[in-house]
Amino acid sequence: MDTSRIQLAHGGGGQLTAELIRDVILPALGGGQDPHALADAAVLETGGGRLAFTTDMYVVQPLEFPGGDIGKLAVCGTINDLAVCGAKPLALSMGLVLQEGLEIDLLQRVLDSAGRQARQAGIRVVTGDTKVVERSALDGIIVNTSGVGLIGADVRLGFDRIQSGDRVVLSGPLGEHGLAVMSQRKGLSFTADLVSDCAPLHELVSDLLDELGENLRFMRDPTRSGLAAVLADIAESRGVDIEIEESAIPAHRTARSAAEMLGLDLLQVANEGKLVAVVAEGAARRAVDVMRRHAIGSRAAVIGTIGPAGESPIVELATAAGGRRIVQMPYGEELPRIC
Amino acid sequence: MDTSRIQLAHGGGGQLTAELIRDVILPALGGGQDPHALADAAVLETGGGRLAFTTDMYVVQPLEFPGGDIGKLAVCGTINDLAVCGAKPLALSMGLVLQEGLEIDLLQRVLDSAGRQARQAGIRVVTGDTKVVERSALDGIIVNTSGVGLIGADVRLGFDRIQSGDRVVLSGPLGEHGLAVMSQRKGLSFTADLVSDCAPLHELVSDLLDELGENLRFMRDPTRSGLAAVLADIAESRGVDIEIEESAIPAHRTARSAAEMLGLDLLQVANEGKLVAVVAEGAARRAVDVMRRHAIGSRAAVIGTIGPAGESPIVELATAAGGRRIVQMPYGEELPRIC
Repeated sequence: MDTSRIQLAHGGGGQLTAELIRDVILPALGGGQDPHALADAAVLETGGGRLAFTTDMYVVQPLEFPGGDIGKLAVCGTINDLAVCGAKPLALSMGLVLQEGLEIDLLQRVLDSAGRQARQAGIRVVTGDTKVVERSALDGIIVNTSGVGLIGADVRLGFDRIQSGDRVVLSGPLGEHGLAVMSQRKGLSFTADLVSDCAPLHELVSDLLDELGENLRFMRDPTRSGLAAVLADIAESRGVDIEIEESAIPAHRTARSAAEMLGLDLLQVANEGKLVAVVAEGAARRAVDVMRRHAIGSRAAVIGTIGPAGESPIVELATAAGGRRIVQMPYGEELPRIC
Repeated sequence: MDTSRIQLAHGGGGQLTAELIRDVILPALGGGQDPHALADAAVLETGGGRLAFTTDMYVVQPLEFPGGDIGKLAVCGTINDLAVCGAKPLALSMGLVLQEGLEIDLLQRVLDSAGRQARQAGIRVVTGDTKVVERSALDGIIVNTSGVGLIGADVRLGFDRIQSGDRVVLSGPLGEHGLAVMSQRKGLSFTADLVSDCAPLHELVSDLLDELGENLRFMRDPTRSGLAAVLADIAESRGVDIEIEESAIPAHRTARSAAEMLGLDLLQVANEGKLVAVVAEGAARRAVDVMRRHAIGSRAAVIGTIGPAGESPIVELATAAGGRRIVQMPYGEELPRIC
């Protein structure tokens, strides 16, 4: 392995991504910020309040897939990055890099889909930029969406608020987005009922903020490297063990089969439109109830518990078969170009 | 010409870009906004004040060029888009798409350069995202920078403030960024003294805002398609004729020669770090004086005058030789991948 060059695995959201951010990106750009400083969104004090600011690059292939496309995915992804830091999304930007020779009809479909999703979510795309590069220099379309949102004065979320005994709540079945894209790419035929779960979370999150208040400790959407990466990040950042129950984790039957057939761990598959929330023990039931009011949260469940502080914190899965295994932070790119 | 497919010229910042934005992008994303609605930056009312929000995709080739690289260019470009709408830059994001196999040393140099430029400008990069794609799917690095800034309560800038008799002021010599990149790419040897003029404008702009007040009507940085595109945009949006004086336009001698050798119109070449300001007639001298206090504005000059309203507004150049010619809005991509 040539460590002097970028590998696909550097983009996977796993350990190798974390190393690239820690060793190359943050020393250059972050000026000594901690490794979470360039995470999904930043919170800025503006004098008049707190502003959330986030950016995402989308390189998904194929550009259109069951249940969505790169445009819808980008809009949902950026809304969700704002929502999980407790912000009410204010506006989005959209930057495009297009390949020379791209069919304008395809571009139109992708943008129509992005626009429709934004309007449905009640959030405007207010600024943009478009570049074109030679056919040999890019395949398809790359999208950047960035977003700004306002954080209410009473919102307090963060790793530092997580306590031993808190519960982990998941808003719905795992892996459908990643596996729908992957199945399309691999031409799997038995997965016809598997569609991307790509959806905006801001309304569900707004209800959680309103109804749980201080009992809502932390939120994250499990995208690249899936639930495993979110839990590993919590365990490491907060220095706590986490235990999750396999039998409690909602998943579509076809998603389980597709993951098995592709040799993937469902916990590591990318989602877009699912929420992981850490809540106070006594508020877990309520969190599930709030989520279930929304179509995208209809299968919400309590899936685990934050344990005590550990010397080398681990995430453990109590398997459906009665065993236990350690959930690994993925090393690199199991599934390139899923989001 | 196959009009059903994207051409390089769609990315050039000229007429074909304007058509793509008007016919494809805005109907999908803009919800009936005018063609300037997805321009360089958006202004958002946040309750507590006005927020400027901007995004840029950078695809420059080569990634490193005399006087800069894609990292420095991206940071300057986004600072400048905020500055020209009268905002004090607050924070930047940086999104990266990397080609598998990219040398990490090259990435490090580019990011160091971006970080150095941001620190010099006193503006933090607060959030980011990195994706990696296969070697066959991209050459090099694509950068997105987005930015947010705050607009002072007393700042009033816009096309609608431009009046007949106002003067056009340019902060420095034209074309050095575009021609330095182009010369590097073409291997021109006589252009050794030509370096990219890429620089952040926010301090110069801040002084202009302070000292000119209401007499500062409008600002724009002449990037893709250069001064010609900015003036065409003003003429069309405001419905006015504009006259500029060739002999008054500052330009580096080597830049003039390089443009001539490459068959390019210096007025259409991309810059990054130059400012076009429209100011009240009586404030033009003062604007030049303010600009000249800054190293990047040392060759600032009054270059033209806003004329009366015209039925089909034109931009006219009074040539050094005593003739007159119409300055065209470039049709497409004279210089692909300059920014």
